[in-house]
Amino acid sequence: MGMVTLTTDFGLADGYAGIMHGVVQSICPGVAVVDLTHQVAPQDVRSAAYLLYAAYPYFPADTVHCVVVDPGVGTSRRAIAVETPRGCFVAPDNGVLSYVLDREPVTAAVSLTNPGYHLSPVSRTFHGRDVFAPVAAHLACGVPLPDLGESVARLVTLSVPRISVRPGGGLGGVVIHVDRFGNLITSIGQLLWRGDDLSVRPAFSTAGGRGIGPWSSPFPASEARVRVGRRCIEGIQPAYGDGPAGELLALVGSIGHLEIAVVGGSAAQVLGAGVGAEVILEAKGL
Amino acid sequence: MGMVTLTTDFGLADGYAGIMHGVVQSICPGVAVVDLTHQVAPQDVRSAAYLLYAAYPYFPADTVHCVVVDPGVGTSRRAIAVETPRGCFVAPDNGVLSYVLDREPVTAAVSLTNPGYHLSPVSRTFHGRDVFAPVAAHLACGVPLPDLGESVARLVTLSVPRISVRPGGGLGGVVIHVDRFGNLITSIGQLLWRGDDLSVRPAFSTAGGRGIGPWSSPFPASEARVRVGRRCIEGIQPAYGDGPAGELLALVGSIGHLEIAVVGGSAAQVLGAGVGAEVILEAKGL
Amino acid sequence: MGMVTLTTDFGLADGYAGIMHGVVQSICPGVAVVDLTHQVAPQDVRSAAYLLYAAYPYFPADTVHCVVVDPGVGTSRRAIAVETPRGCFVAPDNGVLSYVLDREPVTAAVSLTNPGYHLSPVSRTFHGRDVFAPVAAHLACGVPLPDLGESVARLVTLSVPRISVRPGGGLGGVVIHVDRFGNLITSIGQLLWRGDDLSVRPAFSTAGGRGIGPWSSPFPASEARVRVGRRCIEGIQPAYGDGPAGELLALVGSIGHLEIAVVGGSAAQVLGAGVGAEVILEAKGL
Repeated sequence: MGMVTLTTDFGLADGYAGIMHGVVQSICPGVAVVDLTHQVAPQDVRSAAYLLYAAYPYFPADTVHCVVVDPGVGTSRRAIAVETPRGCFVAPDNGVLSYVLDREPVTAAVSLTNPGYHLSPVSRTFHGRDVFAPVAAHLACGVPLPDLGESVARLVTLSVPRISVRPGGGLGGVVIHVDRFGNLITSIGQLLWRGDDLSVRPAFSTAGGRGIGPWSSPFPASEARVRVGRRCIEGIQPAYGDGPAGELLALVGSIGHLEIAVVGGSAAQVLGAGVGAEVILEAKGL
Repeated sequence: MGMVTLTTDFGLADGYAGIMHGVVQSICPGVAVVDLTHQVAPQDVRSAAYLLYAAYPYFPADTVHCVVVDPGVGTSRRAIAVETPRGCFVAPDNGVLSYVLDREPVTAAVSLTNPGYHLSPVSRTFHGRDVFAPVAAHLACGVPLPDLGESVARLVTLSVPRISVRPGGGLGGVVIHVDRFGNLITSIGQLLWRGDDLSVRPAFSTAGGRGIGPWSSPFPASEARVRVGRRCIEGIQPAYGDGPAGELLALVGSIGHLEIAVVGGSAAQVLGAGVGAEVILEAKGL
Repeated sequence: MGMVTLTTDFGLADGYAGIMHGVVQSICPGVAVVDLTHQVAPQDVRSAAYLLYAAYPYFPADTVHCVVVDPGVGTSRRAIAVETPRGCFVAPDNGVLSYVLDREPVTAAVSLTNPGYHLSPVSRTFHGRDVFAPVAAHLACGVPLPDLGESVARLVTLSVPRISVRPGGGLGGVVIHVDRFGNLITSIGQLLWRGDDLSVRPAFSTAGGRGIGPWSSPFPASEARVRVGRRCIEGIQPAYGDGPAGELLALVGSIGHLEIAVVGGSAAQVLGAGVGAEVILEAKGL
């Protein structure tokens, strides 16, 4: 029996997440259910895509990840379940799986058209309870994915924020997430420490393939330069605490992406920057 | 072994909810415990009554629901445990079970007077930890309800928000809950889609009985009219997204009640309306 | 197999806490994991120390408590695991265990220097995921504490807020925590009701020993007097509700410490007082 994770924008105040737990336990008693988060910004599909991408590698490979950030609930958007070597994903077909599926091959994908695995009746406003939670529970309890509905060939995808090689040198990327501390997490990654040097390789696939590019030559972290808006940050630090309060820092974040932080403060506020803001990494040999 | 749900106004910052988990696991190791919500507005018994009413049908019938919204902690209010065909409920005797018990017959009810099932000593300020959590854990682990204390015949009840048939036609109700998106959930329900038509029947019992009234004749959803304050909404929509941003909508919410929403906004803010606000549903034949 | 608790300042929005759950379940499948809280004020080590102190007595003695409030992540601060008769504690060595360890004897303590029990590679910014969660999971699944790293003799400690006996009579203490309702929890404790009288004894050790002092003679609660700033509160009440809305109350809180509250309001706001504010308890015989 696999475990189940839940990722939604329901918040924790209204009991919606708790109801999903009840549905899962009713169908698959005793299964472990983890709340990845219920505080995705309302209807922010891209933010949910990022959070899932950052989290799924840390769960067992037989986990069922259930994602309900679903601006199109009640419309004709499809509901899907997707199987990969690193877990199953149950979600609306709105691109929320894009970042994960850029890295993981899809071994099977279905549209959730079999009502036998849904609650009855299905409401038009709460498919988290009536469709996604029941399907996730059935998957965790061993129902084969093909039983859930018709096979689908193409899924809706978001544009994935690639790294660009800039004409004048350096790598260009964008802010892809702002965390609760106001840290700006960028698309520039992954970065790997090699002593005091860093190497970088594209976090997402480049030319359609799933193969992630090769590591760059190592460059000295202390001589790298990060540009965001009109600001320029000298050097990439190993950790958040490395500087006086208020100082703007570049560092390697927990998922291996370039991150911009302010010691004891919020980089998002200090820079007035959010998701989509351009960031450039310049270093020797890039 | 049943599972346990927790519903409180403790919030998540102070560890009070976590402590209740510890007490439950200490008494009934390995039991599944679900947080329904810990973010009931402080001391808002009516809101907790609604949240419980919306959630309990989605849990297994042997679940123990533990509710601690308890303005009277430390006073002489009773603590109770109530058995129904759809689960046991452990709570202060302050009406928080009213909406559930309007729908579910009580098969046994006791006052929690047996200190053998409480922690010792019992504080005067945190009965969630010292009384309610231990009792819920003992119930989940198989202690018979009558062992917990003396049988009680009458419970404190809140007035249940009935639907009224209006002299000039239509049904009158009130807002019973405002969710985190600012959607106004009304007492008018349940509503059931029959193609593009809707039927309605009283969500709560009418004349003392537990029998819920019969379904009305179907009426065309597109010709229904909802009045709230000075505003009039034409038609009942199938889902939240059906309209341009900012538009005021009436729809059938996830628990089958009439709900008022603003596309991409907060109906509570736009209308300046909250719990208790009057709402009227007019439709052909009502 | 013991259970695991998590206490962090990660919040619930970014999925960091959920990722820790994933790591724990990957290493020790099926273990019960309780979120004590993830809403410690960012980097507030003292607040986390208090929350852990209030909670740990309510968990089974084989619980592994994992605490990640870690301003020094990525610096040279040590990571530790500590064994006591009331559970194991895994945390940065920054004093966050001080209040617990003032009451519980340490039977073994190690620095987490064995990388075999960490994820690989270890990031420099998220040791909750890469070090603390894996170690807690291994401990819960039976790995002996000495395997985790080198034994350590001295741990970093915070000053523990003692009670002082005042020259003119009475006991002096400080506010050690402000809860979400604005209640001020003081270091003056523990207080125990004996009918309408109270006894007090130091909550924390006094002269280096772990023995907690003896109980004072009982004094009438109604004649006690509590001073905070320029305000004087007459009598200690049994519960929060005992007074008209807006009234300032002194009472015995849920962990047996003297607490200051405002009926239906926030004592922190009304008094403009926070952690560290001085509080004096005067009573017959103290």
